[in-house]
Amino acid sequence: MGMVGGGIGAFIGAVHRMAANLDGKIELVCGAFSSNPERSMQSGKELFLPESRTYANYEEMIKQEALLPEDQRMELVSIVTPNHVHYGPAAMALEHGFHVICDKPLCFDLDEAYKLQKLVKESGQIFALTHNYTGYPMVKEARQLIRDGKLGAIRKVVVEYSQGWLSTFLESTNQKQASWRTDPSKSGIAGAMGDIGTHAENLAEYITGLKIESLCADISILVDGRKLDDDGNVLLRFENGARGLLFASQISAGEENNLKINIYGELGGLEWRQMHPNSLTLKWPDQPKQILRTGVGDLSEISKAHTRIPAGHPEGYLEAFANIYRNVAICIDARNNGQEVNPVYQDFPGIDDGVRGMEFIYKVIESGKTEQKWLSFS
Amino acid sequence: MGMVGGGIGAFIGAVHRMAANLDGKIELVCGAFSSNPERSMQSGKELFLPESRTYANYEEMIKQEALLPEDQRMELVSIVTPNHVHYGPAAMALEHGFHVICDKPLCFDLDEAYKLQKLVKESGQIFALTHNYTGYPMVKEARQLIRDGKLGAIRKVVVEYSQGWLSTFLESTNQKQASWRTDPSKSGIAGAMGDIGTHAENLAEYITGLKIESLCADISILVDGRKLDDDGNVLLRFENGARGLLFASQISAGEENNLKINIYGELGGLEWRQMHPNSLTLKWPDQPKQILRTGVGDLSEISKAHTRIPAGHPEGYLEAFANIYRNVAICIDARNNGQEVNPVYQDFPGIDDGVRGMEFIYKVIESGKTEQKWLSFS
Amino acid sequence: MGMVGGGIGAFIGAVHRMAANLDGKIELVCGAFSSNPERSMQSGKELFLPESRTYANYEEMIKQEALLPEDQRMELVSIVTPNHVHYGPAAMALEHGFHVICDKPLCFDLDEAYKLQKLVKESGQIFALTHNYTGYPMVKEARQLIRDGKLGAIRKVVVEYSQGWLSTFLESTNQKQASWRTDPSKSGIAGAMGDIGTHAENLAEYITGLKIESLCADISILVDGRKLDDDGNVLLRFENGARGLLFASQISAGEENNLKINIYGELGGLEWRQMHPNSLTLKWPDQPKQILRTGVGDLSEISKAHTRIPAGHPEGYLEAFANIYRNVAICIDARNNGQEVNPVYQDFPGIDDGVRGMEFIYKVIESGKTEQKWLSFS
Amino acid sequence: MGMVGGGIGAFIGAVHRMAANLDGKIELVCGAFSSNPERSMQSGKELFLPESRTYANYEEMIKQEALLPEDQRMELVSIVTPNHVHYGPAAMALEHGFHVICDKPLCFDLDEAYKLQKLVKESGQIFALTHNYTGYPMVKEARQLIRDGKLGAIRKVVVEYSQGWLSTFLESTNQKQASWRTDPSKSGIAGAMGDIGTHAENLAEYITGLKIESLCADISILVDGRKLDDDGNVLLRFENGARGLLFASQISAGEENNLKINIYGELGGLEWRQMHPNSLTLKWPDQPKQILRTGVGDLSEISKAHTRIPAGHPEGYLEAFANIYRNVAICIDARNNGQEVNPVYQDFPGIDDGVRGMEFIYKVIESGKTEQKWLSFS
Repeated sequence: MGMVGGGIGAFIGAVHRMAANLDGKIELVCGAFSSNPERSMQSGKELFLPESRTYANYEEMIKQEALLPEDQRMELVSIVTPNHVHYGPAAMALEHGFHVICDKPLCFDLDEAYKLQKLVKESGQIFALTHNYTGYPMVKEARQLIRDGKLGAIRKVVVEYSQGWLSTFLESTNQKQASWRTDPSKSGIAGAMGDIGTHAENLAEYITGLKIESLCADISILVDGRKLDDDGNVLLRFENGARGLLFASQISAGEENNLKINIYGELGGLEWRQMHPNSLTLKWPDQPKQILRTGVGDLSEISKAHTRIPAGHPEGYLEAFANIYRNVAICIDARNNGQEVNPVYQDFPGIDDGVRGMEFIYKVIESGKTEQKWLSFS
Repeated sequence: MGMVGGGIGAFIGAVHRMAANLDGKIELVCGAFSSNPERSMQSGKELFLPESRTYANYEEMIKQEALLPEDQRMELVSIVTPNHVHYGPAAMALEHGFHVICDKPLCFDLDEAYKLQKLVKESGQIFALTHNYTGYPMVKEARQLIRDGKLGAIRKVVVEYSQGWLSTFLESTNQKQASWRTDPSKSGIAGAMGDIGTHAENLAEYITGLKIESLCADISILVDGRKLDDDGNVLLRFENGARGLLFASQISAGEENNLKINIYGELGGLEWRQMHPNSLTLKWPDQPKQILRTGVGDLSEISKAHTRIPAGHPEGYLEAFANIYRNVAICIDARNNGQEVNPVYQDFPGIDDGVRGMEFIYKVIESGKTEQKWLSFS
Repeated sequence: MGMVGGGIGAFIGAVHRMAANLDGKIELVCGAFSSNPERSMQSGKELFLPESRTYANYEEMIKQEALLPEDQRMELVSIVTPNHVHYGPAAMALEHGFHVICDKPLCFDLDEAYKLQKLVKESGQIFALTHNYTGYPMVKEARQLIRDGKLGAIRKVVVEYSQGWLSTFLESTNQKQASWRTDPSKSGIAGAMGDIGTHAENLAEYITGLKIESLCADISILVDGRKLDDDGNVLLRFENGARGLLFASQISAGEENNLKINIYGELGGLEWRQMHPNSLTLKWPDQPKQILRTGVGDLSEISKAHTRIPAGHPEGYLEAFANIYRNVAICIDARNNGQEVNPVYQDFPGIDDGVRGMEFIYKVIESGKTEQKWLSFS
Repeated sequence: MGMVGGGIGAFIGAVHRMAANLDGKIELVCGAFSSNPERSMQSGKELFLPESRTYANYEEMIKQEALLPEDQRMELVSIVTPNHVHYGPAAMALEHGFHVICDKPLCFDLDEAYKLQKLVKESGQIFALTHNYTGYPMVKEARQLIRDGKLGAIRKVVVEYSQGWLSTFLESTNQKQASWRTDPSKSGIAGAMGDIGTHAENLAEYITGLKIESLCADISILVDGRKLDDDGNVLLRFENGARGLLFASQISAGEENNLKINIYGELGGLEWRQMHPNSLTLKWPDQPKQILRTGVGDLSEISKAHTRIPAGHPEGYLEAFANIYRNVAICIDARNNGQEVNPVYQDFPGIDDGVRGMEFIYKVIESGKTEQKWLSFS
């Protein structure tokens, strides 16, 4: 694997590396870790890479690696840069025959998204997007339960992603994470709705298997001086008639990373919270609540295939993230060996999820600006 | 105290009686417990009332009691009938010089609400509305913390009231609670939004001290055959610019009585849940969360004045409900004795809260029917 | 009902009164509220009693009330004094034909306990002891589940009652609750083990239906200057061979009233916590946990008979306490009317529980002083 | 790193490998994965090792690796075999100049423990024992808080490790984990007390910084046919006079991996639970509870040094486990480069913890068999 971005000190780059490391199936062999060539070199050194495989920029990396013998060169490019530097390396990697794992949201604007979608389909390469929260075993269990009709027809969905880390004007301090995420030239047209709103949208559609059909949004900047939205509240209607709410915020002071979802069907409800990811609560009318737990009892095949250790040993964010890398590794390996892949390992977010997320960003920002109540989102 | 409605078997009548009993300050002396005179008689007997003080209807009760000597007659009328039988006894009781405690929502329609408001103001009698959830000590503590500026300016409010008991077409079985609540001729123009949405609205405005300024609602009937809304999701904007969400549902299968509120200010956030009412969570950026608990430590005077027992002995729904009755008893007693009342005991929902609730019902139902995004609610 | 002790400002007296009031079945008609006659008079006045029914001491109260006509005099004496003033009024009340509800532990010493047991049996009067925690619906549900064999044979029991209110030398400040509870001349031979250890013992034996057969205790005074135990840890063996632990402490700084119990059988486990009394967790090997909730679904008859309001409206400590008073009232009423009582209402702690508790106190204190490992407790 | 044991399908071997992988600082270069040479070979292949570095047994591995050039051979041996195969490879690895990470408990019997302790001290090599629970950031924070005197002098410690996986006679089914753990010829003299009781002992002494001075144990076999203890309850006295309880069980039906600890000092208490490892609850008399969270706010240097990702992204069991591997890697690297190591990275369990654990096993089993109440454990 080669990495684009993620120099020493970066948050998400380190996450991707740990996720790639965990299962021993992927080796970091090269990288272009920073737009600053010296920082890139320094990062490569600290990651035990030889100088020859640490590149000054992604263009060089992709070109040079493509020239290496097949058994030496990277097979996969991991892109962990800010949004405005997703499309470039992704497109180039695909064009040179590499598989791609890209951080979310997919790219800078919708135009890039459609171009990238076309490229992925044409190339036939594997493309994964790190909507990592769907990597949790209990999220997969939830989806399976709904697919199996355990809740009956879905009537209501409430998905929330509340954070508080931008409740002050943090970008004025040059804090790295805040700076680019609140900068329209790097982040794109959306702030919170792009950074975390898309996770919420992806989670809701993934678990329910339902598409949002229309939406009505109140999108706000609540911290003075900020350039992009830091709070958004959205009414949802799903294709089957279900009602819903999506709200995402980065000014919910004191919240850490409070992603959670409640889904109600004709027969019962379920609740999952990212902060306690190994529990899945099922709620039944006139019956005791049930707490399903990672690794306990007769869970679905797909949930078990994404669990590493026995029950009671908490698995966390990195393990869920690593499930994407592990699955991609299995798929690449199978492809290399001409083997079939068990569908449970093909379950990771891809280019279509990425395009859907970009469309969501555009629709929700548009809704925030209009006096029209409902916008179609199909 | 005399009671209107609440014959044997009624849910909320029994609650009101237990709430009135708890502190030994109020005695049930008479009642018109049912529109069926025989049922009323039977109820009176089971409540240890003499036949002479058990009346066939509220008109008779109010008239007869008014004729009794002052030291024998009831002072207070408790109205625990369905919505369409609130205005009648309330108006008549006020006109005959009795104080009134009335179940919520205030009455059948907005017209009645304004008339009743006028009557209360003219009569000078005490009028309390049982928005009982504001009776919890930790709700009062939350309000005080915000008044004291501990959270800074409020930016976001999320209030939820989810129930699941109407997730089937229960009214078709003649279940008593379901039947009248889903019947427009008894409940009024709203179902869930009137029954529990108003509690959510009241709680949010009570704790924050802020008025909702505009709203945008998606109001639905999700169970086939039902005549009134059973689910509503509402975007809120508050007078100070804060954003918010209110959602209330009676089809959230598996939920019991899940009323909760999250409020975020510039400095921190708070969370309170009715199902665990003795805890109030404060969330701070870069500081440990704090769990305030009923009766623990240096709480506000108003919180302590509504706590009966030392910390660790859970106080519940009835105690919160009883706080309204207890406060009304204190106020009546003070009035009778020409004494001042400590303001902490004057804190119970009154006629203006009731009118506000009725206006909320009308506005939110109107919003549910229009394509206009925001409706003003001031 | 007449009350002994519980003058204005007393903690447990007010609890007993609210418990008696709640259901409207018991009326406070007289009292001897304090050993100080003036305080007693003042208390009676504040409780709306006539002077003629407020007595200077319990002897006078019992004598005078016995002289009143049957339809006027009290039927029941509630004893809410410190331990050394339990036996006297209880014995005298029984001898004069009154029923008794007495606070726990039963009395000052084991000798009194046996004498009182004899008196109760001879008198045939109703005698209830306020081991109130068994009044919670979910405690009764737990007991029923075990009776029904749902957990299989019981193997292990862990019961804990941790408080922190005596983690400082509070009695040196003359704090009323601390003063008598740590004074051997009022409390008896035990401090924490008598005050709360007996609750734990009662809860464990009540739910499991098993007797503790032998025990091994480490009993300590951990706050300098204190005269009675403030911490105790006890190994338990039950009659059926089950193992267990009982620990009770009043120096567990920061704990409120943390009474909880875990019970494990061959087939599954259960957990109940007094601080969240409306949930009962069932734990199953290889199956989802289940959360039973007060009022939800198909619970046992006995649990439902001790629940007042629908699910989701938290019932607390006072309601559990009131279940003892309510049941006693039902039993007295049935006796007066020559009726049978449904066994679910006969379920309240009585004289044998009280004697068992006193024996526990003596055995556990003895164990704390000896080098012998196991003491028989049968 | 070379691995002894942990062939495909083994539980703890996979955990060690993931822990070693996570931070990209340790590479698996060889292994003797099974006592069955073919299984070892197959395992090596699946782990991408060349045949030349997959050995038939640990003796061969250590000998052959020692012959390789310094820059090629393993530096560290990871021992993940059952207890009776700890001493052999550990001793041999040390004698050949390799560092060792060994699973717990230290070895088969106390004699081996003392010999190994001597060997480690003589060799000067790094020796780590995977008492992994002390690797959690919030456990380190708890220890630091106590060191800093925030709780005052410690008075009481309650540590529990409850599991339910052996609540049936699982070893009769040849389940691999159950078979060796309940077999005295492989596990040693203890079952549950060795497997998990030592974790509890280690956790309590690690966090408090206090040694257990004496103990009194009730050790049982509660499942018919089992050969080693499956339940143990122990009274503790600590060197400073603090009281305590340790209980560990593998027949607590329905429990997953319920390790938790409550510690009470003169000033306050703390609570940590392995199943929710990112929270540390501080309890204060007359003050709100505080919830410290991994990565939130101004935590101790040592806690932060063992946290990988920002707050709200749950870190779990593998991350805590990996902290031992990461720290060992840092220490080896520093030693190789003649550098000092920041003390926060020197914090991992070592040979003395291992010997202490073995002594605990012997003492607690002895106590379980004697009628003497207290045994000294110093």
